[in-house]
Amino acid sequence: MKIAVLPGDGIGPEIVAQAVRVLKALGPNFDLEEAPVGGAAYDVAGHPLPPATLELAKKADAILFGAVGDWKYDTLARELRPEQAILGLRKHLELFANFRPAICYAELTSASSLKPEIIGGLDILIVRELNGDIYFGQPRGIRTSELPLFKGAREGFDTMHYSEPEVERIAHVAFEAARKRSKKVCSVDKANVLETSQLWREVMIRVSQEYPDVELSHMYVDNAAMQLVKAPKAFDVVVTGNLFGDILSDEAAMLTGSIGMLPSASLDKNNKGLYEPSHGSAPDIAGKGIANPLATILSAAMMLRYSLGMPAQADRIEKAVQKVLAQGLRTADIYTAGTQKVSTVQMGDAVVAAL
Amino acid sequence: MKIAVLPGDGIGPEIVAQAVRVLKALGPNFDLEEAPVGGAAYDVAGHPLPPATLELAKKADAILFGAVGDWKYDTLARELRPEQAILGLRKHLELFANFRPAICYAELTSASSLKPEIIGGLDILIVRELNGDIYFGQPRGIRTSELPLFKGAREGFDTMHYSEPEVERIAHVAFEAARKRSKKVCSVDKANVLETSQLWREVMIRVSQEYPDVELSHMYVDNAAMQLVKAPKAFDVVVTGNLFGDILSDEAAMLTGSIGMLPSASLDKNNKGLYEPSHGSAPDIAGKGIANPLATILSAAMMLRYSLGMPAQADRIEKAVQKVLAQGLRTADIYTAGTQKVSTVQMGDAVVAAL
Ligand SMILES: CC(C)[C@H](C(=O)O)[C@@H](O)C(=O)O
Ligand SMILES: CC(C)[C@H](C(=O)O)[C@@H](O)C(=O)O
Repeated sequence: MKIAVLPGDGIGPEIVAQAVRVLKALGPNFDLEEAPVGGAAYDVAGHPLPPATLELAKKADAILFGAVGDWKYDTLARELRPEQAILGLRKHLELFANFRPAICYAELTSASSLKPEIIGGLDILIVRELNGDIYFGQPRGIRTSELPLFKGAREGFDTMHYSEPEVERIAHVAFEAARKRSKKVCSVDKANVLETSQLWREVMIRVSQEYPDVELSHMYVDNAAMQLVKAPKAFDVVVTGNLFGDILSDEAAMLTGSIGMLPSASLDKNNKGLYEPSHGSAPDIAGKGIANPLATILSAAMMLRYSLGMPAQADRIEKAVQKVLAQGLRTADIYTAGTQKVSTVQMGDAVVAAL
Repeated sequence: MKIAVLPGDGIGPEIVAQAVRVLKALGPNFDLEEAPVGGAAYDVAGHPLPPATLELAKKADAILFGAVGDWKYDTLARELRPEQAILGLRKHLELFANFRPAICYAELTSASSLKPEIIGGLDILIVRELNGDIYFGQPRGIRTSELPLFKGAREGFDTMHYSEPEVERIAHVAFEAARKRSKKVCSVDKANVLETSQLWREVMIRVSQEYPDVELSHMYVDNAAMQLVKAPKAFDVVVTGNLFGDILSDEAAMLTGSIGMLPSASLDKNNKGLYEPSHGSAPDIAGKGIANPLATILSAAMMLRYSLGMPAQADRIEKAVQKVLAQGLRTADIYTAGTQKVSTVQMGDAVVAAL
C-alpha cells in the first residue's frame, strides 16, 4: 500500500507527523513516501504542486495531506499560491466526491458556540462535489463589460456549470452514503435563481428513483445556511455543489466548535482518495507544538476505511481517539477547565499508546 | 409622500396590515397605495410583477413589501414564480444596496440557538450587493457540455460577474455605513478561486483609500460562514456580493434566533428603497393570525429613516417596539415561558398604543 504523505505548510508537518506515527504503530508495512506541497513546494521547487509531487500522488493508493497556505505567499500570483496545490490535486486526480463529516463529540459539546441541546450528538455528513461548478468553469477572467449601464468598465467574471453526468455521479455517492446512515439526503441548491441549480435538482430527482429507500429533500442554500444554525440535527446527509459545499461544510464544521477534530476525504470513482483535516494550516500557531493532530489522525482512519480496505484498522484508530478524549487529554483548541492540556506530540503519544 | 404597499403572499398581508396601522398612527398623511405582488399578483393578473404594480413601485417614494412565495406556485415556470417579483423590483428600480441588520434584542437572547455569551448584544450589518453577480449574469441556460470528459452531455450554466463601478458603488455604501458605526468593514469574497472576487477585492481596497478612518479587512466566504458561528460579535459591517450576501445574511439573521424581528432595506442611489422583513412568507402559518409583525413594522421605521427623511418618526417606532418587548409581549415565534403570547393583531395594537 503506497501512501503519498504531503505535509504542506503551517501546522501541516506537525500534525501529519503524528498521523504517520499512528499508521506505523498499526503494524502493516505501509509504504509512506513524502513530498512537498503548497508553499513548502514553492520554496523548494518554484511551484505549489511540482510535477514530482503530482506524480507521487498519482501513483499512490492514497494521499495523506496536511494543510497549505501561509501569509508569506499572499503576494504571489494566484497560479503560484499554495491553494492551487489542493485545487490541482482534486482536478488532476478526479477527486470529485468530498466527504465532510460534522460530528460533535460528547466530551467536546461545550466547545461549541451553540447550546448543548442544539448541538450535542450532532453527526451529519456533507457530501460536496469537488471537480465542477464555478471553481473550474470556463470562460473566466477580466474583460470589458457589455452591460448597458456599465459598458466599457473592467469586469471580473466566472462561469458556474454542472453537466448531467457530473451531478449523477455525486448523487450516487450521496445516496449510497445515506443508505449506510439514516436514509435521508438533503440536496442544497439555488434553483429559484440559477440554471445550474435547476439542472442539478432535476438530476437529483431522477437519480433518487434508483434509491426508493432513501428520502430526498431539497433546500435553497440560503435556507440551508439558516437551518444548520437553527436545528443542525435535522440533517443527515447533505449533498451540494462545489461552491455551496465550500461554505456549508465550513459552517457545519464550526457548529461543533471543535474543527480540530474533523477529518475529510476526497475520493475518485475508484475510491482512491486524498485525506486531510477540515481545518487549515493555522500559520499563527505553526511550530509551537500546540496544534491538534486528531483531525489528521482521524483522516488517516478514513483513508484506511475508504481507500485501503482496512476498516478494522480504521476502527482501532477511532477507538483510540475516543479513549484519549475520555482520558481527558486536550490540545489547546479544545481545552476546558478540568481537562489536561497536552502538546501535539503528547496527543500523538497518547493515541499510539491507546491503539 | 407616496408609499407603495405590496403585501404579497403567505403571512405578507397580515404583517403588512400591522405596519400600515403603525404608519397611519404616526400622523403624517402618507399616501399609501396597495397593489398585488408575487403569487397573489399571478392569481389576479397572470404575472408575479404586473405592469401596474411595477409602475406604482416606480412612482412611489418608497415601497413597503411583505413577502412572496407559496408552495402552490411551485409548479409554475420559473419566470412566473413569486420570487421573480422581488428580483424584478430590485433590478428595474436599481435597488443595488441591501441592508440586513442582524440584531439580538436583549429580551430575546434566549431565542437563539447560540449561547447567550456568544450572541447577546449582537448588532452587525450585512451590506449585500443586489443588482449584479450570478443573479442576473448572462449568458446562462442549458447547453451541451464542451468539457472533454462530459462532451455532449446537457449542462446548466450561469455567469457570475461584477464590474468596477458596481463594486465601487456598494463599497461606498458600506464605508459610509461603517462611518456611522464602529468604522470597520469586512469585505467577503472568494478571491482565492474566483476572478470576480479578485476584481471585487481590488476595488474594495482602492475605494477604502477614500475612507482612511475606516478599517477594511477581507475574509473568504467559507471562513466568514465559520466566523459568524464562532464569534459573530467580532464583525461590524460586512459587505459582500449578491450570492454570498444571500447566504451570509440569512445565516447571520438566524444566529439571533429571532428572524421575526429583523427588517431590511434595499436602496437605489437616491435612497429610494424597498423595505421588507428578513423572513419569508411562511405559508404554513398564513391566515392563522400568529405571525410576528415586528420585522415589518421595523422595516417601516427603516423606510422613514432612509427614504423619507423622517428619523424622529423612525425612532418613535423603534422605541415603541422596544417597549412592547419590555412589556413581555411575544408572538409565538419568540415566545418563552414567563412572557405573554399575543396574536399578530394584538402585537400591532400594542405597538400603536406604545407610540
Ligand atoms: C483553499 C481553497 C481553495 C479550498 C476551497 O475553496 O475548496 C478550501 O477552502 C477548501 O474547502 O478545501
Ligand atoms: C427569493 C430569492 C430569489 C431571494 C434571493 O435569493 O435574493 C431571497 O432569498 C432573498 O434573499 O431576498
